[in-house]
Amino acid sequence: MSADGDGNSAYGRTAFKRSRSHFADRITADGRDGWPVEAGRYRLVVSRACPWASRAVVARRLLGLEDALSMAVADPVQDDRSWRFTLDPGDRDPVLGIRFLSEAYDRRETGYPGGVSVPAIVDVPSGRLVTNDYQRITLDLATEWTALHREGAPDLYPRARRDEIDAVMADVYEDVNNGVYRAGFATGQQEYEEACAGVFRRLELLADRLAGQRYLVGDTITEADIRLFTTLVRFDAVYHGHFKCNRWKLTENRVLWAYARDLFQTPGFGDTVDFDHVKRHYYQVHTGINPTRIVPLGPDLAGWLTPHHREELGGRPFGDGTAPGPVPTGEEVPAPR
Amino acid sequence: MSADGDGNSAYGRTAFKRSRSHFADRITADGRDGWPVEAGRYRLVVSRACPWASRAVVARRLLGLEDALSMAVADPVQDDRSWRFTLDPGDRDPVLGIRFLSEAYDRRETGYPGGVSVPAIVDVPSGRLVTNDYQRITLDLATEWTALHREGAPDLYPRARRDEIDAVMADVYEDVNNGVYRAGFATGQQEYEEACAGVFRRLELLADRLAGQRYLVGDTITEADIRLFTTLVRFDAVYHGHFKCNRWKLTENRVLWAYARDLFQTPGFGDTVDFDHVKRHYYQVHTGINPTRIVPLGPDLAGWLTPHHREELGGRPFGDGTAPGPVPTGEEVPAPR
Repeated sequence: MSADGDGNSAYGRTAFKRSRSHFADRITADGRDGWPVEAGRYRLVVSRACPWASRAVVARRLLGLEDALSMAVADPVQDDRSWRFTLDPGDRDPVLGIRFLSEAYDRRETGYPGGVSVPAIVDVPSGRLVTNDYQRITLDLATEWTALHREGAPDLYPRARRDEIDAVMADVYEDVNNGVYRAGFATGQQEYEEACAGVFRRLELLADRLAGQRYLVGDTITEADIRLFTTLVRFDAVYHGHFKCNRWKLTENRVLWAYARDLFQTPGFGDTVDFDHVKRHYYQVHTGINPTRIVPLGPDLAGWLTPHHREELGGRPFGDGTAPGPVPTGEEVPAPR
Repeated sequence: MSADGDGNSAYGRTAFKRSRSHFADRITADGRDGWPVEAGRYRLVVSRACPWASRAVVARRLLGLEDALSMAVADPVQDDRSWRFTLDPGDRDPVLGIRFLSEAYDRRETGYPGGVSVPAIVDVPSGRLVTNDYQRITLDLATEWTALHREGAPDLYPRARRDEIDAVMADVYEDVNNGVYRAGFATGQQEYEEACAGVFRRLELLADRLAGQRYLVGDTITEADIRLFTTLVRFDAVYHGHFKCNRWKLTENRVLWAYARDLFQTPGFGDTVDFDHVKRHYYQVHTGINPTRIVPLGPDLAGWLTPHHREELGGRPFGDGTAPGPVPTGEEVPAPR
């Protein structure tokens, strides 16, 4: 994300509001928007710092879409031209040949006045942005890209459970995924307190739900777990201090800390997380709330690899499927420490 | 404290440096500096937010000097004229009759160009500042004010242990008391990292020392414990987030958390601590590191009152003396929550 949501532009307004994605074309099996699912045709552009983009990184791994849908990882620290490919040789994405993600936006719509956000999917042949619809992208990976899924890919959005998954995700979005941003970018005490209280109220309800069941919906991993995970994994590293969501650390909530570690240690989750990208992004980009741009040394992250004992609750992480294989060469992340 | 140390003036320089106290006259039994110990003559001006001033608040309670040395509590949030008495009726200290502590400085030295800091002791008859020497004030309360101590007052600076106490306090000052400020007010990443690493290195050494003994020096409470306590009690509430000392929370260190709770629950320590003053001071005054002035809701402080089991280590908190009596009317603080 970014633009209106993640960067400094969010800051200094009356209340933090996340705008809708602007480009909401869908890539579908039947190609009805003009963008048919096709191996090798599209490029997923992400930042490993960004929780919204990280949903897509996890889903792509779980579904085994790494070969079919290549991935560009942007520098976690944007400059005034937003997301950029300064981690790549020559500061250019090697596939798209562009230096800034904004170039793909420009090819889609000349003079587009909105912000540039990740996740974004770009059509490689034309270099044009297809979609930056972060709420839709992962659902389509799960339901429209099935022909390209690996053998043993889990069903992340099972038809019979969609109402329940949607309801859980709506609450998680409002109070947790976006709640931490409303707390962090609040410009007044009351606005902050309402958002922060809402974060913890919802987390406590989720902990109740997860005390006796391994995953949020049913007994397998679904999209709802992915969306909660991407916020929880950032909680102590950035939201606790930087966004002042500090009633307690994730590590202090027995149920949620075990749940988050369980997912972290499941192939496809923790192996996508780069805490260095996460910390540098938040602390160096949001100068409105961290003017010094200093990145804290803590917290100690080694605990993410400790036993969680959630397997005692049963559950079948991948349902009738299997765990994804190893991380593709070149996409490895450092171990937490 | 404040002025060069605690406020924004500290911020934006190459490296954080705490200047010496400017007014270092001593109030002694023999009155050799012209200021003899005398009941009712002086007024101790503090902020309950300030760790340096809080040393004197604790020592005054432990020694039973409340009747002999009255106390003025400044508003935790300074304005551009520094510490002020806006908590009192008419915004004036009822004993000194002044609105700003700076007025007592002005009566001592016209046009004094330095900063205004707490703790400060003011001569009531003349309204003149006597001393703002935070390193000396508590030692003199312990050793020069003995004629006015309560019956059963502990010896906070026992002669036979002074070398050891001084050595411990020097390390605690450099790495902990002042270390958290050097971390929090650092203007560069390296300066911050050195200070923050130093804080935790020293805390771990102190935890080793305190694992098998109840207090820092000998088996009784000394000035060294007071000085470590005033930083530890602020650790999770402000230094962890606001000053980025976030390797771990105090509550995550078994030994130090038990040690700090033991002292907190000892009469004379926790009954002087106002967490609301502490949080509002740091988060609202240091706009250089918290431009929104938003005060976090967390952390949950109820844990300060939980059992610590340190009495199993033995020790005699007050040596041959006794615990202080109840907090004087009008000096009560809210319970932590």
